Amino acid sequence: MEDILKIAILGGTGNEGAGLGFRWAAAGHDIIIGSRSAERAAQAAEKLRAGLPAGSGLITGRENTIATQEAEIIVLSVPYEAQTATLDTVAPVLAEKLLITVVAPLGTPKGRVWAVPGGSAAEEAQRQLGESVSVVAAFQSISAEHLQDLDHDIDSDVLVIGDRKADRQVAVDLAADAGMRGVHAGPLQNAPVIEGLAAVMIAINVRYKMKDAGLRITGL
Amino acid sequence: MEDILKIAILGGTGNEGAGLGFRWAAAGHDIIIGSRSAERAAQAAEKLRAGLPAGSGLITGRENTIATQEAEIIVLSVPYEAQTATLDTVAPVLAEKLLITVVAPLGTPKGRVWAVPGGSAAEEAQRQLGESVSVVAAFQSISAEHLQDLDHDIDSDVLVIGDRKADRQVAVDLAADAGMRGVHAGPLQNAPVIEGLAAVMIAINVRYKMKDAGLRITGL
Repeated sequence: MEDILKIAILGGTGNEGAGLGFRWAAAGHDIIIGSRSAERAAQAAEKLRAGLPAGSGLITGRENTIATQEAEIIVLSVPYEAQTATLDTVAPVLAEKLLITVVAPLGTPKGRVWAVPGGSAAEEAQRQLGESVSVVAAFQSISAEHLQDLDHDIDSDVLVIGDRKADRQVAVDLAADAGMRGVHAGPLQNAPVIEGLAAVMIAINVRYKMKDAGLRITGL
Repeated sequence: MEDILKIAILGGTGNEGAGLGFRWAAAGHDIIIGSRSAERAAQAAEKLRAGLPAGSGLITGRENTIATQEAEIIVLSVPYEAQTATLDTVAPVLAEKLLITVVAPLGTPKGRVWAVPGGSAAEEAQRQLGESVSVVAAFQSISAEHLQDLDHDIDSDVLVIGDRKADRQVAVDLAADAGMRGVHAGPLQNAPVIEGLAAVMIAINVRYKMKDAGLRITGL
């Protein structure tokens, strides 16, 4: 890792966001767990800190807007249903920052794709935020199951979607910092695929009675 | 393989359909290459036959409607733009048969998802054909590159989508007959994902200067 990044994880009290934050902190980055409630954010941060090895980066907890203000990279890890309201709240302090969205709309029953009106949650976010924010989609199909176990090798690649190569590269590097391989997989227009893969992974988990189906790109 | 199946491949003169037909014939199945033109179908069949090892199944060529009439399983492998017209032609003889669609709408420029009005080509096909035909989607993200080289190990799983388990299983078995692993990946509602993966694989091929990016499900 070259630079220590300051990363806010909105909805970082959930399993996926917390797991990614834990791995990034272990890699030396400074993590701000964001939540609507500053108290819940602080509690989640404290719990994560307790498990970190020596030499890790910081993990603190803040209300979402303050977390966004303090960080240079913003990771959106809220349920799809909370996305619009969350982005509304933080939009005033998000301009010129990079937003990496982990959000995947999940249909019911489990394992079904939810085709949202804007094509994908990531495209809806980009439209809501406008051109001053660059939206990258990644980590949707990574199971949260083993993220907080640093000894567990995550057997899955991270497909990274976005319109700007340099911004995709940030997510590719963050995948590496979390022990995974990031793969450039096309423009934001392809976001429905990687968001839908989250539902497909759940369908596979249900069908084959497992918890952590992953996905590897071959031939690279 | 337990049973010898009679399989029609509509649009079987194209690389993907021809490659699958070649592998299935090599596994012992009887293949009917379908085309709008009986002559082109016969030529394509002859060319494929020439490369088959001893003991293979038959490969013949027929006009699409006759191919559909003669077969028990119909594989749709036409460009998305030709799908509706092709299905219109064969619909009268398709009732009660299984349709496995390989179709993937590909956007421009290369490597972009094309979000079609009906959600996916497979869902559009199911709506067009009605309940008497069971539609299964599979093989969308398998590169045609090495299908006609039986010694080449295809390093990619086949995600199989469909509403009826027994019908998905037919495609899973046909994946095995073609030397690949089929994976049950949910109901037809998930078809946008596996169709979109075809575009994502092209995006990866373009970005990493390769021709046969594949995809493996891990943890199974």
